[in-house]
Amino acid sequence: MAAQRRRSKKTSGRRTRLKDPFDSAHPIPYITRRVPVYELASEELLEIIENNAETVLEDIGIEFRDDEQALELFRSSGCRVEGNSVKFPRGMCREIIQNNAPSEFTQHARNPKRSVKIGGDSTVLVPAYGSPFVRDLDNGRRYATLEDFENFTKLTWMSPFLHHSGGTLCEPVDIPVNKRHLDMIYSHIRWSDKPFMGSVTAPERAQDTVNMAKIVFGESFLDDNCVITSLINANSPMTFDATMLAAARVYAENNQANVISPFILAGAMSPVTVVGTCTQLFAEALAGMTFVQLTKPGAPVIFGTFSSSISMQSGAPTFGSPEPSMVLYIAAALARRLGVPFRSGGGLCASKVADAQAAYESSNTLQTAMLAGVHFMLHTSGWLEGGLTMSYEKFILDTDQAGMIQVFLSGVDSSINGQAMSAIQEVGPGNHFLGCQHTQTNFESAFYRSAVADNTSFEQWRDDGEKDAEMRANKIWKDMLNTYEPPSIEPGVNEELLAYVKSKKDSLPDLNY
Amino acid sequence: MAAQRRRSKKTSGRRTRLKDPFDSAHPIPYITRRVPVYELASEELLEIIENNAETVLEDIGIEFRDDEQALELFRSSGCRVEGNSVKFPRGMCREIIQNNAPSEFTQHARNPKRSVKIGGDSTVLVPAYGSPFVRDLDNGRRYATLEDFENFTKLTWMSPFLHHSGGTLCEPVDIPVNKRHLDMIYSHIRWSDKPFMGSVTAPERAQDTVNMAKIVFGESFLDDNCVITSLINANSPMTFDATMLAAARVYAENNQANVISPFILAGAMSPVTVVGTCTQLFAEALAGMTFVQLTKPGAPVIFGTFSSSISMQSGAPTFGSPEPSMVLYIAAALARRLGVPFRSGGGLCASKVADAQAAYESSNTLQTAMLAGVHFMLHTSGWLEGGLTMSYEKFILDTDQAGMIQVFLSGVDSSINGQAMSAIQEVGPGNHFLGCQHTQTNFESAFYRSAVADNTSFEQWRDDGEKDAEMRANKIWKDMLNTYEPPSIEPGVNEELLAYVKSKKDSLPDLNY
Repeated sequence: MAAQRRRSKKTSGRRTRLKDPFDSAHPIPYITRRVPVYELASEELLEIIENNAETVLEDIGIEFRDDEQALELFRSSGCRVEGNSVKFPRGMCREIIQNNAPSEFTQHARNPKRSVKIGGDSTVLVPAYGSPFVRDLDNGRRYATLEDFENFTKLTWMSPFLHHSGGTLCEPVDIPVNKRHLDMIYSHIRWSDKPFMGSVTAPERAQDTVNMAKIVFGESFLDDNCVITSLINANSPMTFDATMLAAARVYAENNQANVISPFILAGAMSPVTVVGTCTQLFAEALAGMTFVQLTKPGAPVIFGTFSSSISMQSGAPTFGSPEPSMVLYIAAALARRLGVPFRSGGGLCASKVADAQAAYESSNTLQTAMLAGVHFMLHTSGWLEGGLTMSYEKFILDTDQAGMIQVFLSGVDSSINGQAMSAIQEVGPGNHFLGCQHTQTNFESAFYRSAVADNTSFEQWRDDGEKDAEMRANKIWKDMLNTYEPPSIEPGVNEELLAYVKSKKDSLPDLNY
Repeated sequence: MAAQRRRSKKTSGRRTRLKDPFDSAHPIPYITRRVPVYELASEELLEIIENNAETVLEDIGIEFRDDEQALELFRSSGCRVEGNSVKFPRGMCREIIQNNAPSEFTQHARNPKRSVKIGGDSTVLVPAYGSPFVRDLDNGRRYATLEDFENFTKLTWMSPFLHHSGGTLCEPVDIPVNKRHLDMIYSHIRWSDKPFMGSVTAPERAQDTVNMAKIVFGESFLDDNCVITSLINANSPMTFDATMLAAARVYAENNQANVISPFILAGAMSPVTVVGTCTQLFAEALAGMTFVQLTKPGAPVIFGTFSSSISMQSGAPTFGSPEPSMVLYIAAALARRLGVPFRSGGGLCASKVADAQAAYESSNTLQTAMLAGVHFMLHTSGWLEGGLTMSYEKFILDTDQAGMIQVFLSGVDSSINGQAMSAIQEVGPGNHFLGCQHTQTNFESAFYRSAVADNTSFEQWRDDGEKDAEMRANKIWKDMLNTYEPPSIEPGVNEELLAYVKSKKDSLPDLNY
């Protein structure tokens, strides 16, 4: 016993010397899936969808609007191009993608310990993206600012269950539209050392993202390595616009990753059926990924979907309902068969506050994304109101769910210790397991420990002020921001980044488009 | 067009004449699963658990406390019995169950249209069970009364997504313990016509349940048909008590169904690991189901689990976390391999109110139960606070989730209409689907319509009073109770039931045990 104690003391001393406490709290950079995916659709159904998608590509075609360069590229590759419409020979997109796009790739972080693998058996959890508003319990709903953006960068960095810094965590509405990407990229790089997403609102902003990444990673590193992942939405149905294409081109030419994401509210932007929606979004994704592979063969690309449905009474978007879950399961299977990484899911909801509706809807989508085999789970944390609002409290609540997803996907321990026959033998009928040797040994790692859930008695909860989950989350994010300390950065790199941002901003007028 | 309008008018006229509007709102009595289950564990792991469970049965044994009749039954069947401990020869339980227990059976309702199939490809959703408290937004948390019990019977009956009236919807604490089962059974029979669960707190109360069922269904109907399903909890670890055994015996001897349910908070009542917990609960379930099959070969039996975990800091029960989901998936697979129906799941949570915590936890468990292939989903609706409280608002919110489960399990429509190629063709790139022919045709059935979710704009929601999900649910259950009309019952049967209840009550002193 004494010897054992000495040894463990020594070990813990060594640990203190060698390990950064932040690193200990972030033991893994991303999830390695050790459980099967859920296969909703039969092989036959997947083949029907694949065939129908080829028919859409061949007979109906996809519009690539006002981008002569794209249209010429398709024409010279054997497509029928008329006006903006591109019709693809049957099987062409699949062949080009399968011959060129990587089935998995690494997105490097400026801290190599936080680089993530995208594709294969990996799952990367990413915060929500794109909301113009933020909400917290103290100040309610308001336009987002750069301070909010920086706060969410910091909260994401501190969370052990989010693996990626994300992109437009919220829109810093206090900064002109044509300049805010510079502040956002700087924030991701400076206040986090996890990987991040680039600007897509104009090709020159994509280029700024690439240029700033080159300051951090070095000019030539980007030639062979992915350090930026960016979100390219299709304008469903069956349309890509010039802005998105131009941004995607910049990233592809620089060998950086594009998530090609049909953005679909089924019933409005696709048919009212699951299979019809899957068919259309697959055709759109095939066309978009083909554009990337023709632009730069081998550039990393992710098949993305954002698919929900609408209320047939009001036309309003709805979330967490069964049909979008079906679409997600099927789209994930189509991505696997194609052999490219897949993006979907997240804590999607229509609710205006972090109430029961928000949680049911978010959990339904998170569970679906978890079991579908999503590789890049955008919108994991913070979403409210169909993405219009990023909520501080919901961010904390969703991130707790991200922790549970990490435990589940890490799989079942079937070792001798996991089988626990010694515990059942030791305790026997009618006794409890709290004090047995096996419980003592496994105490630390036994069960996922939620930071937000209140599991106390009713009386304790009442005496503590009857706080609901949203109120408890409010304290947590404030405590986190109060204890935030930035990751280190090389001073020269930081100065160069700041100089780049300043010179770019000085060179531009303030524009709000 | 005119001809079409005339025809549809005629059809709708015929419908009004032939169909009870209540029946139209309840088009199916239970869910027929048309999607695959999620298989978490490999064959190898399931075999390890089965083997280990046999070792528990053979070497450690199960205690059947203070029930000489049970002990003698096991002794004469070849078990080693010492004191209360029963040790089973390897493979004996499995063989007895597989040779005798039905893999699926029908539980008849007094209205044949509401009879349910339990097992196979069916899923039956059942409200929560057993809470001493109720809660609603107006009156907060308080002890439950018979009026509450009747209210939940009515709400369950009115819901198209709950297929079963359940059992102890809440404890009518205003009625003496030894009499309240009479009021509960009468309530299930009178205020609903869906199937129900029996009393298990004493063998004479089980017998009352059987006697009252015979008044409704006729003396001989019960000989060959199941009309009662009852919940028999094991006292984990590895113990059955005399009360539960005696109640189970009454039901088995009368050919009625028993749900044999190890009730486990892992870490306290089973090992802290998933595989250890599965091993123990499977051994307990095997022993309990063997007791039933030895008592009455062929009597319907359901393998039940109630498994959650505890907080290792406080010992408090926790819900909706990943480890219990793993246990649920594995237990369901063990039930399939054994060939018996499976009970688990529901909207389990530790929260004191119907907030985000309640919803995340409930949804995580509901989604797991949905995909695991649960046949009898007890606790689908209403649970709060680890089962201590039945909430009116949570009941409404969970039942909305039950509706989504029904849609999901009903499967993907892969018909020509489901494929919707005509819609994609008609609409084409850049347009919307709202007005196209296919959308018009499928408008009614297109997507699940939640009665609780608020999908309006922020401004609309704000102007409507910023109501959260719990507040909206409050209005719904009140509206339901206000419009409740009881199902018809034969006056003679009703009188006989009332007379039975009265004479039983008159013959008993008021006891609170």
